Amino acid sequence: MNYRMIVYIMGQISKVVGLAMLLPVLTGFIYGEEHILASFGIPILMLLIPGFAVTLKKPQDNSVYSMEGFISVAASWIVVSAVGALPFVISGDIPNYVDALFETVSGFTTTGSSILSNVEELSKSSLFWRSFTHWLGGMGILMFVIAIMSSNDSRTMHMMRAECPGPKVGRLVSKSGSSARILYGIYISMTAIEIILLLFGGMSFYDALIHAFSSAGTGGFSIYSDSVGHYGSLYIEMVIAVFIILFGINFNLYYYMLIRKFSAVFRNEELRTYLGIILGATLIITMNIRSLYGSFFEALRYSFFMTASTITSTGFATADTNMWPVFSQTLLLMLMFVGSCAGSTGGGMKVSRIMIMVKAGIKELKYIINPRAVASVKMDGKPIEKDVVRGATSYLIIYALLMFCSVLLITLDSFTIEESASAVITTMNNIGYGVGRFGPAGSFGELSSFSKIVLSFDMLLGRLEIYPIILLFAVKRR
Amino acid sequence: MNYRMIVYIMGQISKVVGLAMLLPVLTGFIYGEEHILASFGIPILMLLIPGFAVTLKKPQDNSVYSMEGFISVAASWIVVSAVGALPFVISGDIPNYVDALFETVSGFTTTGSSILSNVEELSKSSLFWRSFTHWLGGMGILMFVIAIMSSNDSRTMHMMRAECPGPKVGRLVSKSGSSARILYGIYISMTAIEIILLLFGGMSFYDALIHAFSSAGTGGFSIYSDSVGHYGSLYIEMVIAVFIILFGINFNLYYYMLIRKFSAVFRNEELRTYLGIILGATLIITMNIRSLYGSFFEALRYSFFMTASTITSTGFATADTNMWPVFSQTLLLMLMFVGSCAGSTGGGMKVSRIMIMVKAGIKELKYIINPRAVASVKMDGKPIEKDVVRGATSYLIIYALLMFCSVLLITLDSFTIEESASAVITTMNNIGYGVGRFGPAGSFGELSSFSKIVLSFDMLLGRLEIYPIILLFAVKRR
Repeated sequence: MNYRMIVYIMGQISKVVGLAMLLPVLTGFIYGEEHILASFGIPILMLLIPGFAVTLKKPQDNSVYSMEGFISVAASWIVVSAVGALPFVISGDIPNYVDALFETVSGFTTTGSSILSNVEELSKSSLFWRSFTHWLGGMGILMFVIAIMSSNDSRTMHMMRAECPGPKVGRLVSKSGSSARILYGIYISMTAIEIILLLFGGMSFYDALIHAFSSAGTGGFSIYSDSVGHYGSLYIEMVIAVFIILFGINFNLYYYMLIRKFSAVFRNEELRTYLGIILGATLIITMNIRSLYGSFFEALRYSFFMTASTITSTGFATADTNMWPVFSQTLLLMLMFVGSCAGSTGGGMKVSRIMIMVKAGIKELKYIINPRAVASVKMDGKPIEKDVVRGATSYLIIYALLMFCSVLLITLDSFTIEESASAVITTMNNIGYGVGRFGPAGSFGELSSFSKIVLSFDMLLGRLEIYPIILLFAVKRR
Repeated sequence: MNYRMIVYIMGQISKVVGLAMLLPVLTGFIYGEEHILASFGIPILMLLIPGFAVTLKKPQDNSVYSMEGFISVAASWIVVSAVGALPFVISGDIPNYVDALFETVSGFTTTGSSILSNVEELSKSSLFWRSFTHWLGGMGILMFVIAIMSSNDSRTMHMMRAECPGPKVGRLVSKSGSSARILYGIYISMTAIEIILLLFGGMSFYDALIHAFSSAGTGGFSIYSDSVGHYGSLYIEMVIAVFIILFGINFNLYYYMLIRKFSAVFRNEELRTYLGIILGATLIITMNIRSLYGSFFEALRYSFFMTASTITSTGFATADTNMWPVFSQTLLLMLMFVGSCAGSTGGGMKVSRIMIMVKAGIKELKYIINPRAVASVKMDGKPIEKDVVRGATSYLIIYALLMFCSVLLITLDSFTIEESASAVITTMNNIGYGVGRFGPAGSFGELSSFSKIVLSFDMLLGRLEIYPIILLFAVKRR
């Protein structure tokens, strides 16, 4: 393994995050917050000094393969979360370090679960940083590094694979650096458009930034305890709902639209299925909650927002789903597993992975009827390689095993099985809210420190799609 | 498809079940129950008359393949459950037909979930029939037909596969008829030994028969509301716990022991894993519930019985697990998925299937580290065919999908998510008890008729391992 290159990549990522922390410092200055230099200065130096030190010289052997990619991504995400938690502790906003770590991991992994019960108490700079971690984690920190690194080495593709969600990574152009720049360009543009549209809705610039960052990363941190419901504005809700759905679509499709390859977009089965599920679930939940609201339209409004928020793994809320019928709550819990499209900023198992698995299941049924029938699993009209099918089903197995273990560990806290399981489901799928005390109006603060650490790992497992984190701990040093 | 042969097999099965119903009639006579002829006579005639009519002449084309096997098994199980429910209705013991159907399906599928809240109210003949369905369903009704059918056609192997649980069917001897006879011989002998041992424990002959039938099928119906706990006898609990563990072992291993091939038994990885899980879970639960009981030994006693009862999918109870810590409840809920060994009378996903999946997951991790490494999944030291690995993972996918759909349908009843999910988990894995109101002391009687029918299907899906039931409804008539 090329350890020097792993350290080099970690250094690059530390520099990016260290520099990104200058933005909350600026926010603090604008709002005249005291101690802003102390609370952010120390962690910034902790990231920048070693970051610049190890990246002064690029290693001569700059080869990176899957292993180097996985290890450096997993280690970097843990390091930046550990350091990124410090401003909350130093500022006194979240005095307990484990709580601050949970909150920061929840930010970078775009989960949006919070240990806070009264988010309004936080300083403006802390709230800004909290939501900005969503934006950084959404498209990927390493991806950003690749985008700005001058090298256009095709081997960095191995690294992108470690951070990019979905059953397989399609490269847009032959150079990974260019691919990353294109993706980040689209990401920044879409975030900017959302900010503008939110400003039109009467939001302050600060609020618009926060909610656009949280939408773009499909994260879900808000600055109000009642989340997006706080505004009570249909316009704002619709802008956010539409944008989180857009951020949950494979970004490759936006690139195809830019280069006018519209057929690739229309032919995309995953997109059609994703939109179909949103439409179907919205209508079913609307019927189910109809009697709780004054009109069909009002039920539709809340149903659409919560469906979009859940399937895209955002976790913004406009309604307390604990008040909804158990059927709707269960349906939302299941949408958490489905998640958004591969190659988007959203979480969950990804629509395409579910599709591959369902198709493999149907193929198995055909095989049982007639063992001589040779059927292949197809997506977008083309057969999928066996490796990809096997990869998707193996992913489900490892995912289910880790989920079972996590639930068992969380039940040591003696909350109900339902609450414990929902806490794991929502963190591992990077959603943000569960059921019961972990519902949209609840908080993860009541959990033991042990459980918070378990759930922090679950969030990282979910965001990085398991393998990098497992390999970081499982691989013997060679 | 050979429809004539399907009808012929269904006729044979109807005859067997019709004749089996003579035993509860005998019980009714012994205990001088009125209406015994009416309540059992009508269903017996409904099975025997068409049964004999369609089996007068064996079809000339007696070829049976997988499809014929699956379809005839699925259709037969539904028919005998539908008719087998009638004695409960006619006798007035369970006046509602849907309730009676649920109870009968629960019997044949060896689930043991009951809609009754006061089982002591039932007549002796009904209680006998209820537990006897466990015994018939445990080893398989079609298997019994194969055992007694004079034909030794090797093609009937296809039919055995439809009813025999596990990822693959190993044939003991080249003739399926002989295989079935050997298996039933072992089954009857073990049941007889258990009856004798229970009699030694002071049980009445009637009680011993009932509990041996329910143990042998790993079913779980008792004749007391407090199940096996009613006797308060350590000896009886230990006899039953050991026997349900024995009935949860692959019967092929007993045959190997009979022909003195002990090495095949010791080499068997599934058996070692199964016993290891029971040991591990027993100890962990003992620690967890220690403070609830007077001594370590007492905690061990209840922990061992409930662990054995759960993993073997029996569902007998000596303790109300709702009183146990959430951790132990969750661990038991997870053991329900694991289930017993393939080729046993137990339910669940089967230990070997779980092992294949875990091994496939580990293989995938190795593949990700080094895509050129060629590793194969091994069991008992031998590589497993790819078809079997793919079959096990596909099974998990279809199983999970059906489980999610069922839970969603059950939540329409507005019980908690936890209770709804546990009802599906316990029925689909053929265990018998869930959590909350469906716990060991509870009853499934409160569910709506719709939910009872959904759960009845889940029990059949679980017992017949999904494919026969799906194919019965999915296959187009050709």
